[in-house]
Amino acid sequence: MVLLKIEKQDSKPVFRQIIDQVIELIENKSLKEGDSLPSTRNLADTLGLDRSTVYRSYLELTALGYLESCPGSYTRVRKRARVVTETSNSEPGILDWSIHSNSESNQLYDFFLKFKPETAVRIPDDLINLSPLDLDHRIFPVDDFRRCLNQVLVNLGPKILRYGSYQGDQNLREDIARRLQIHGISISRDEVLVTNGAQNAIELVLKLLGKPGEYVAIESPTYANVIPLIRHHGMNLLEIPVNDQGMDLDQLEQMISKRPPILVYTIPNFQNPTGITTDQPHRERLLGICERYKIPLVEDGFEEEMKYFGKAVLPIKSMDRKKIVIYLGTFSKVLFPGIRVGWIAAEKECINRLTSIKRFVDLSSSSIIQAAVSAFIRGGYYDKHLKKMHRIFRKRMTTTLTALKIHLPPHVKWTKPDGGYTIWVSLPWASESEREFVDTFIKNGVLVSPGLYYFFSSHSHRYFRISISSLNEDEITEGVRRLGKSLQKMKEQRD
Amino acid sequence: MVLLKIEKQDSKPVFRQIIDQVIELIENKSLKEGDSLPSTRNLADTLGLDRSTVYRSYLELTALGYLESCPGSYTRVRKRARVVTETSNSEPGILDWSIHSNSESNQLYDFFLKFKPETAVRIPDDLINLSPLDLDHRIFPVDDFRRCLNQVLVNLGPKILRYGSYQGDQNLREDIARRLQIHGISISRDEVLVTNGAQNAIELVLKLLGKPGEYVAIESPTYANVIPLIRHHGMNLLEIPVNDQGMDLDQLEQMISKRPPILVYTIPNFQNPTGITTDQPHRERLLGICERYKIPLVEDGFEEEMKYFGKAVLPIKSMDRKKIVIYLGTFSKVLFPGIRVGWIAAEKECINRLTSIKRFVDLSSSSIIQAAVSAFIRGGYYDKHLKKMHRIFRKRMTTTLTALKIHLPPHVKWTKPDGGYTIWVSLPWASESEREFVDTFIKNGVLVSPGLYYFFSSHSHRYFRISISSLNEDEITEGVRRLGKSLQKMKEQRD
Repeated sequence: MVLLKIEKQDSKPVFRQIIDQVIELIENKSLKEGDSLPSTRNLADTLGLDRSTVYRSYLELTALGYLESCPGSYTRVRKRARVVTETSNSEPGILDWSIHSNSESNQLYDFFLKFKPETAVRIPDDLINLSPLDLDHRIFPVDDFRRCLNQVLVNLGPKILRYGSYQGDQNLREDIARRLQIHGISISRDEVLVTNGAQNAIELVLKLLGKPGEYVAIESPTYANVIPLIRHHGMNLLEIPVNDQGMDLDQLEQMISKRPPILVYTIPNFQNPTGITTDQPHRERLLGICERYKIPLVEDGFEEEMKYFGKAVLPIKSMDRKKIVIYLGTFSKVLFPGIRVGWIAAEKECINRLTSIKRFVDLSSSSIIQAAVSAFIRGGYYDKHLKKMHRIFRKRMTTTLTALKIHLPPHVKWTKPDGGYTIWVSLPWASESEREFVDTFIKNGVLVSPGLYYFFSSHSHRYFRISISSLNEDEITEGVRRLGKSLQKMKEQRD
Repeated sequence: MVLLKIEKQDSKPVFRQIIDQVIELIENKSLKEGDSLPSTRNLADTLGLDRSTVYRSYLELTALGYLESCPGSYTRVRKRARVVTETSNSEPGILDWSIHSNSESNQLYDFFLKFKPETAVRIPDDLINLSPLDLDHRIFPVDDFRRCLNQVLVNLGPKILRYGSYQGDQNLREDIARRLQIHGISISRDEVLVTNGAQNAIELVLKLLGKPGEYVAIESPTYANVIPLIRHHGMNLLEIPVNDQGMDLDQLEQMISKRPPILVYTIPNFQNPTGITTDQPHRERLLGICERYKIPLVEDGFEEEMKYFGKAVLPIKSMDRKKIVIYLGTFSKVLFPGIRVGWIAAEKECINRLTSIKRFVDLSSSSIIQAAVSAFIRGGYYDKHLKKMHRIFRKRMTTTLTALKIHLPPHVKWTKPDGGYTIWVSLPWASESEREFVDTFIKNGVLVSPGLYYFFSSHSHRYFRISISSLNEDEITEGVRRLGKSLQKMKEQRD
């Protein structure tokens, strides 16, 4: 006879009490393998419970592997009852995943580990982090966005939680097309594909156009996350140096004539990491080169709307009459990165093909989030927020540039961006490695990104990237002061 | 002198009125290339406006490509002002995207077009759609989910809109691990990776293990969307026939011994499309085969929790002491597909490698949605909803099976699933193609999925899949009645 004690007053549901007590009885061997349990009717009567409650407990115990029941017979304690608990998480399995993985995945994993810098240096508690390109969440328009989410769920109802369109929410694609028009890009919603952020946009483009063994032309330095991804697609890199005006177009032409890449990847505004914005003639010439050689030009406009100094420069896509430009955008650098909404704007045929890939790799992006972003734009919240972002970061960038001038030792150089969040610092001496510089900075309470993240081949100068995206003026000033102090000390030790 | 007329009472903002009127003046040639515009101060004074309003209009007009301004000089009408409007969307570009795309993308695009059936048949207005495996949105717990979204945004604040963890929200991974424990899978949150739905989980696994030219073993028929994806990764298919007990394991062993695949893909519960659930001995034998040959076994548990008939059968992963099983799950078939939340549970080393891929293809899944799903589970809403789903679909499936018995002509056979949403119907005659069957059904007001979606190689029998996921009992009964009527008519015409 099984003894169970049920407390109806207990906060734990009755069916859960039964489950826990039966498991206890099995584990302390009061119930042994093969032992019969009372029928659900019998136990329900004994305990004064509803039969369905007992049934539910038995069902879950069976699912958990403690009981087994055969039609027409009593429920019994399962023979293999202890399988579940025997599985030890610490025991290694029989597969060596590095052998089962393909070589491109193994290479990607190495990059992944490289980007997780394991520094031996103790991280101080008051570290100022000038490393991540991650927006300051303290200025996120959370309440406005919450209002939009509610509005969408109340007005559109359950339908908005169904599978979305492969290509993306129609309203949102319209909104994106309209915003692109402000930047001179004449495009319709049919020429827009919504992606899981700009990173995912690059992945989809590489899935479409990538051919193992071929070349992709990139700026050097460039966005750190694009290098491993191109390599993951089995391709090689044509690294075109970036000078003060942007990608060196003489070198690009020369390299293309020798070895045409399958695409050219460029970041014309506040380039990541250098912060350089190319001018109109540079853009026209780059487009002209790609047109002449019929090479798709991938324009990463990830911070298009974050220009807050100087006069407007139109995106390359705005001049793209021959439809060779694949334009990438995102809401991560103005709104919130955590919603994962980016997009690709390109010729319709190209978008259709990219949509077919999107359909098979994840069906669609989150329909509810897309609808909420559209409501955010249509409600005027986006315009309002963008204005605020410009006001805030115009001040923050000015403060940063002033602080750099005050605190950094002579001969250290840095870029002066027209917008965005990153500044590229080059050091005149090279006796220490970039890792050593960063470690010394950490000891002095400030973190930046070492230049090596942004190059594929080795490079002779020493660089680091400052990102001001997540800090306020006081924090930035203090961070730059600490950078200055470290560099000063290192210089003195060297001299 | 420029003449602008501003109506402060107008619902159109003043800055927008300026923009529209300047564009009008440029387009009707009242303002010509190179013409100067009044200074912002001058125009603001003339119109009695704030100078910042005029400034904003000029800024946007510059961005739109109508104006250009040089420091220290007047703003002028831009030389290339008409670039923007000249771009015609209908003119084709110079690239042939089918040539620039790689062959795997071209093949995927063909699959995409194949899955967009363009039927010549007129679709009746009252069509009953038994085709999509898309949950009935009328029973979505929208209000509970909205409560969770609000709770998360209010309690966690802006932080929840930052980039999430590459691997996925820690709480949600804990919740998933706990739910898997109910099914006998002993796993920790470190062995779980959150994905953009189960489809994306398959993509990530193929990115990790896929090797062009190698083989993947699949059930035949199988989940339609997995076939193009495997092909997209440049791999071939070992198609193992499904019989009444599931994948034919004798054939699997025979084929493996000849040509070991890089992975075996199986759907043990309510297999899509057949609805078949394999029994415990079948699962043990399949696991044993994969262990012996050291082949990763991908178990797609996409409807694990939707078992509402019969006794529990434990997932293969629950017996996986040697850690060769990569288990896939999703919230799309119990909660909502539009949130795009799925997961992979596997040995930690395998999860780490998959996480490195996730990091480079889209950085992370939506952090806010993950947090809301976790709140939904922890608030008890998930358990409540699952119970409701079981109650509803137990009835719907019973109704469907009864209706099939009543309405379908003799010799037509179908499966009797223990859960999930799909039933596989096989027809005893084959004079018409599956497309012809489907077209006839459409004419009679009911849509199903033709068997050909679920096979890669050709097959001799005629099949179709019924999905009851999105319809209520009355709709299903009427749909089945229409199917029966069509089949009856076709049979009579044939006889």
